[in-house]
Amino acid sequence: GNDVPATKKPCVEKNLELSYADRAKLPNVHPLASKLLNIMEEKQSNLCVSADVTSGEELLQLADSLGPKICVLKTHVDILQDFKPAFSQTLQTLAEKHNFLIFEDRKFADIGNTVKHQYEGGIYQISSWSHIVNAHAVPGPGVVKGLSAVGKTLGRGCLLIAQMSSQGSLATGDYTKAALHMAEEQSDFVFGFICGSKISNRPEFIHMTPGVQMKAGGDTLGQQYSTPDEVIHVKGSDVIIVGRGVLEAPDRLKAAESYRKSGWDAYTKRLSQSDQ
Amino acid sequence: GNDVPATKKPCVEKNLELSYADRAKLPNVHPLASKLLNIMEEKQSNLCVSADVTSGEELLQLADSLGPKICVLKTHVDILQDFKPAFSQTLQTLAEKHNFLIFEDRKFADIGNTVKHQYEGGIYQISSWSHIVNAHAVPGPGVVKGLSAVGKTLGRGCLLIAQMSSQGSLATGDYTKAALHMAEEQSDFVFGFICGSKISNRPEFIHMTPGVQMKAGGDTLGQQYSTPDEVIHVKGSDVIIVGRGVLEAPDRLKAAESYRKSGWDAYTKRLSQSDQ
Repeated sequence: GNDVPATKKPCVEKNLELSYADRAKLPNVHPLASKLLNIMEEKQSNLCVSADVTSGEELLQLADSLGPKICVLKTHVDILQDFKPAFSQTLQTLAEKHNFLIFEDRKFADIGNTVKHQYEGGIYQISSWSHIVNAHAVPGPGVVKGLSAVGKTLGRGCLLIAQMSSQGSLATGDYTKAALHMAEEQSDFVFGFICGSKISNRPEFIHMTPGVQMKAGGDTLGQQYSTPDEVIHVKGSDVIIVGRGVLEAPDRLKAAESYRKSGWDAYTKRLSQSDQ
Repeated sequence: GNDVPATKKPCVEKNLELSYADRAKLPNVHPLASKLLNIMEEKQSNLCVSADVTSGEELLQLADSLGPKICVLKTHVDILQDFKPAFSQTLQTLAEKHNFLIFEDRKFADIGNTVKHQYEGGIYQISSWSHIVNAHAVPGPGVVKGLSAVGKTLGRGCLLIAQMSSQGSLATGDYTKAALHMAEEQSDFVFGFICGSKISNRPEFIHMTPGVQMKAGGDTLGQQYSTPDEVIHVKGSDVIIVGRGVLEAPDRLKAAESYRKSGWDAYTKRLSQSDQ
């Protein structure tokens, strides 16, 4: 309205390149986003490893060995052949030991009443151990409402899938804008996006990008890859999500360190160019 | 091309209102769609009950008691507190006993390489017991390719989610058209849609519609309801999916019979009007 001084708006919308540490201190930042940004700064890592293995034992070994290199460990609990409740307890212990967050990549995509049960209940009880979950925007805002009803009081947070790395994805254009709007409307629970590039100028939101490898390319089922530099430096995202680039490397720890360094270098390059 | 006689086209595209039984015999119909259409005709039921309970024991009791009334039982295996491999074995036995298909409403929505594992592996091994699964179109065609790589040789089939019953859903307009196109391109595995109304004139495709109750309305998390007559007679869908309308009724069997009759009456009304 007319009561707002005209000088305020340009200041708010000015797209300053803040450091992860500065963004962690913003007054409206989601507590989980703040925690993540501090972890990133402290460990000099914007690397999320996607631990797409089918053995729980192997996943826990990965978490323990790669833990020091990552800010987030992304899981698909529903592909583990040997899931037991003890798995999630051990995973939480490792997350504390190595100071990373757990992100169950469940891609919730049903109506609110159903995702509530899927998030809280069943064998996996995802809300009890995963700091971060994600949701598709396609069901409309009810999907976030349902998840928030379970996760908000537990201090959990959600990423909305605004774009996908797969060929022919429909998450583009107006769909992406609608996801952005949905996040803004429910920023007490949604603290960022799964996306290919930065889509929001609000520095409180975290952008996480999957489909990252050292070389661009793809797989036979439509996955498409970008490099750490493209994703962080050129596209302005915050976190690189790397799966096969680490898992299929002869030395996974060495590969994780190499992605951590590439991601961090791309971030410091972005910051230094913003200073000029 | 020019080789095709001009008289052929209007004949193919003419939207005849075929009976379920006639559609089951179409030369290009997916075997699972054919089986479903025959079940519908035989049992005079276009009712799919959505068995959204959190106890596996209760779900099996529901399957046994409501089995004679339904053509499909829709499950959310990941909300069951007490899932054991024996559950899916018993469910399959009940499906044979009462002649209905099992539809795990997993809403797969990831890249092809991931959904492959989610469909085949993990604790639930969905592909081993669920005749039907569904997928969101948002990841692009790779999601169907991944599922098909697992399910096609097992004789399974997939429904693409082209529209949703929830408020503010993004599955509208061009998104719905893209889902339709994706189904047409992969009709050796995709045999129909989750949708609010008939979206394809190919009689080989099955349209299934969720969010059905005797009275229109909604819940507090964005779900919106239509009546059986609206869905089958007015909107031209084939199968009504009813959850809370049956589960929250004082007498579930009576409620299921009432929905079966309403759905079937709406279908015969549609057929008889097409004859005029």
